[in-house]
Amino acid sequence: MCNSDQFVSSIDPLHPANLIPQLCENMYRQGWVTGTGGGISIRDNNVAYVAPSGVQKERINPEDMFVLTVNDRSVVRAPGRGLKESACTPLFFNAFSIRGALSCIHTHSQNTVMATLLWGKEFRISHQEMIKGVRKGGMSDALTYLDTLVVPIIENTPNEEDLMEGMAEAMHKYPNAPGVLVRRHGIYVWGPTWEKAKAQTECIDYLCELGVKMRLAGMRTVPDDGEAVIP
Amino acid sequence: MCNSDQFVSSIDPLHPANLIPQLCENMYRQGWVTGTGGGISIRDNNVAYVAPSGVQKERINPEDMFVLTVNDRSVVRAPGRGLKESACTPLFFNAFSIRGALSCIHTHSQNTVMATLLWGKEFRISHQEMIKGVRKGGMSDALTYLDTLVVPIIENTPNEEDLMEGMAEAMHKYPNAPGVLVRRHGIYVWGPTWEKAKAQTECIDYLCELGVKMRLAGMRTVPDDGEAVIP
Amino acid sequence: MCNSDQFVSSIDPLHPANLIPQLCENMYRQGWVTGTGGGISIRDNNVAYVAPSGVQKERINPEDMFVLTVNDRSVVRAPGRGLKESACTPLFFNAFSIRGALSCIHTHSQNTVMATLLWGKEFRISHQEMIKGVRKGGMSDALTYLDTLVVPIIENTPNEEDLMEGMAEAMHKYPNAPGVLVRRHGIYVWGPTWEKAKAQTECIDYLCELGVKMRLAGMRTVPDDGEAVIP
Amino acid sequence: MCNSDQFVSSIDPLHPANLIPQLCENMYRQGWVTGTGGGISIRDNNVAYVAPSGVQKERINPEDMFVLTVNDRSVVRAPGRGLKESACTPLFFNAFSIRGALSCIHTHSQNTVMATLLWGKEFRISHQEMIKGVRKGGMSDALTYLDTLVVPIIENTPNEEDLMEGMAEAMHKYPNAPGVLVRRHGIYVWGPTWEKAKAQTECIDYLCELGVKMRLAGMRTVPDDGEAVIP
Repeated sequence: MCNSDQFVSSIDPLHPANLIPQLCENMYRQGWVTGTGGGISIRDNNVAYVAPSGVQKERINPEDMFVLTVNDRSVVRAPGRGLKESACTPLFFNAFSIRGALSCIHTHSQNTVMATLLWGKEFRISHQEMIKGVRKGGMSDALTYLDTLVVPIIENTPNEEDLMEGMAEAMHKYPNAPGVLVRRHGIYVWGPTWEKAKAQTECIDYLCELGVKMRLAGMRTVPDDGEAVIP
Repeated sequence: MCNSDQFVSSIDPLHPANLIPQLCENMYRQGWVTGTGGGISIRDNNVAYVAPSGVQKERINPEDMFVLTVNDRSVVRAPGRGLKESACTPLFFNAFSIRGALSCIHTHSQNTVMATLLWGKEFRISHQEMIKGVRKGGMSDALTYLDTLVVPIIENTPNEEDLMEGMAEAMHKYPNAPGVLVRRHGIYVWGPTWEKAKAQTECIDYLCELGVKMRLAGMRTVPDDGEAVIP
Repeated sequence: MCNSDQFVSSIDPLHPANLIPQLCENMYRQGWVTGTGGGISIRDNNVAYVAPSGVQKERINPEDMFVLTVNDRSVVRAPGRGLKESACTPLFFNAFSIRGALSCIHTHSQNTVMATLLWGKEFRISHQEMIKGVRKGGMSDALTYLDTLVVPIIENTPNEEDLMEGMAEAMHKYPNAPGVLVRRHGIYVWGPTWEKAKAQTECIDYLCELGVKMRLAGMRTVPDDGEAVIP
Repeated sequence: MCNSDQFVSSIDPLHPANLIPQLCENMYRQGWVTGTGGGISIRDNNVAYVAPSGVQKERINPEDMFVLTVNDRSVVRAPGRGLKESACTPLFFNAFSIRGALSCIHTHSQNTVMATLLWGKEFRISHQEMIKGVRKGGMSDALTYLDTLVVPIIENTPNEEDLMEGMAEAMHKYPNAPGVLVRRHGIYVWGPTWEKAKAQTECIDYLCELGVKMRLAGMRTVPDDGEAVIP
């Protein structure tokens, strides 16, 4: 491990080390990463950038980044001042290795948590324009208005690292899923670029918010499904 | 088609190419255009400016703009880097050709989507001050406090372009309507200037939000109407 | 009437002509003045500053201001470019003449509109810390935690100017009221300084929001009152 | 008492006198300190910084700060222009003296007020990821996903200073509590640093918001608890 700052000293505002602080601040304003939870990882060729654990997501600096090899998750650059690696790292890497994603986002958005409290093993919604903003498996063709979006819900574990296996399993079982919901916790969403990972996270979050509103108002999110509806 | 950048290099902050990025960022903060959906078009004499498809609406640059002739929708200026024309373009042009509007806005606001889930063929509301911020047909005299705002709701189609005919039909059938709601999708609103298109979108969105709250609380939005109310 | 720009060319950021644009932008972000509705007036000795009618409240410039004599509401300075005087002006002046206020705020906040839909002739709430942020009549001693906040609700009129009489009547009938709610419209709140007018507006809006939530959840806002509660 | 401005003239953006204005503005945007309510205190060795009473929390300047000795709460630096000491000061000092905290935050967040209206003597929630962002007693080890967060609720008093005893009592009775809710008022949360006080406030506020949503939707926040649920 070295501390070479070449990884975090680009003047390009779209360099991962500069972009992650901007995107995290944006997610903070959306209420997705308050209390230091959640984050985003972006790959750049052989390495991946991840913000550290336990920091305020609206106040990250480029020099706070961890940089890890995509290959074996070894740290090639760590920030100073005692910052720790994020427990989300192995989960982000699931998206890189299983789907070939280049970016992965994790939020604690209440819309996603409420969805996991009102649905069972899958969140399902159909006949919504925003479904068209989501790709099959998060990576290939966009879903159409006629498709049903299905996001698997896995059970939470006391340690975030221990979600790795459950998330991987769900990704294999649901090859078309663009993300994985974690009950009483939040969601992981990925994409072939950071732009698409971000847009897909926004679409799925929107659909969770709308789905929760619909269900609480007594409506089905999949019209012809046999899903139970709150009376 | 040429790429002449004269269309997108004004230093006037109110030039359409500079204004659209500002207005899109504002709409993003309102939750109207997350996940790359929605947008705005502004006419400038014979040409109309439209942001491209599938981009993050809070990060648009002037040089990303498409410029099309109002006459026949031919592209006179396209951005580089593989950006595609927005599927909303023909819908925006409905407002230009049928109403003579100079600006048209499209949002995926959840307030409008919820309104389309709770109302049938028309969203109707009366006796609200904000109705006064809306013009007949979006273009002429302002509605009064004593008028009922009626916004037609058309059914969504798998491809956005295919909404063109349905939207045009609704505009002809409802000459006083200042916008058209699209079920499970969002809304199109227009006006004689970008300022008025924007203000009217804000008024109608406010009225959809309030209408949804009222209905879910068991109140009628048109006091003496026979509209069904959630018990 | 003259157009002397001395009224709107101060470099002091707290000068009314500079302050009103900042405060209006802040109110826009709170959702209080979207669609061009609402605004604020600030007195400076013998004159009062008011933003014009029908403009986007987050994009006002100092040179857009109207300046009127407090005495007889004659215009001493008007903006160019065809801007019209705000219809709120006589209502703001009610606060100046009847209460001796130095600032008055008008919002279309949905919290206040919902309160007018759920309460009858008065909005009443007690036993809330935020009540302590409100002064008797908007001007003198602060209410205590043991006081009940009572805000009269007047009926809306098709023309805003016509609210003048009803608002004045309510102010005389309720000398302790710090503001007047207008059914299906919004609220007027005033204070001895712009800071206190703003803080009181925020407190009353907060209490309307909370009161609406409480009532919809089946709780009384005044514990021992005989007020009807949604079952 | 002296007015030495050495306390408030640092160029370090993380100096308490510079940080408190930033953090207060952030809390204002979250809706936690509107109407001048709420605030934050940060200790710096032997002294503590507190913003004054009754000011707009998004417009505080470093030179507005009060600086007091931690030891005996004597004022070593007061702002000019007639600003008064915050009534929250003794409450902040409870956290310093009883828990050894270095920062304490007070909000009027409606999420916390609604929690105090829907729960009795304690707000309880379990099985939520965000619980892991909270430390035992606000100061030591983090709670685990398997722990139940318990925040005592004390009754409000007409004068904020009079909450001092009730808050101290609750802190002694609930040594693991990371904060104290005040019925119909808000919450006090502290931590070993300002970063941790802020993160914990965000986590607890998130959990209050989620808990209220769950309860209003008929769900228990502690699955196996005997807690009454709204039918």
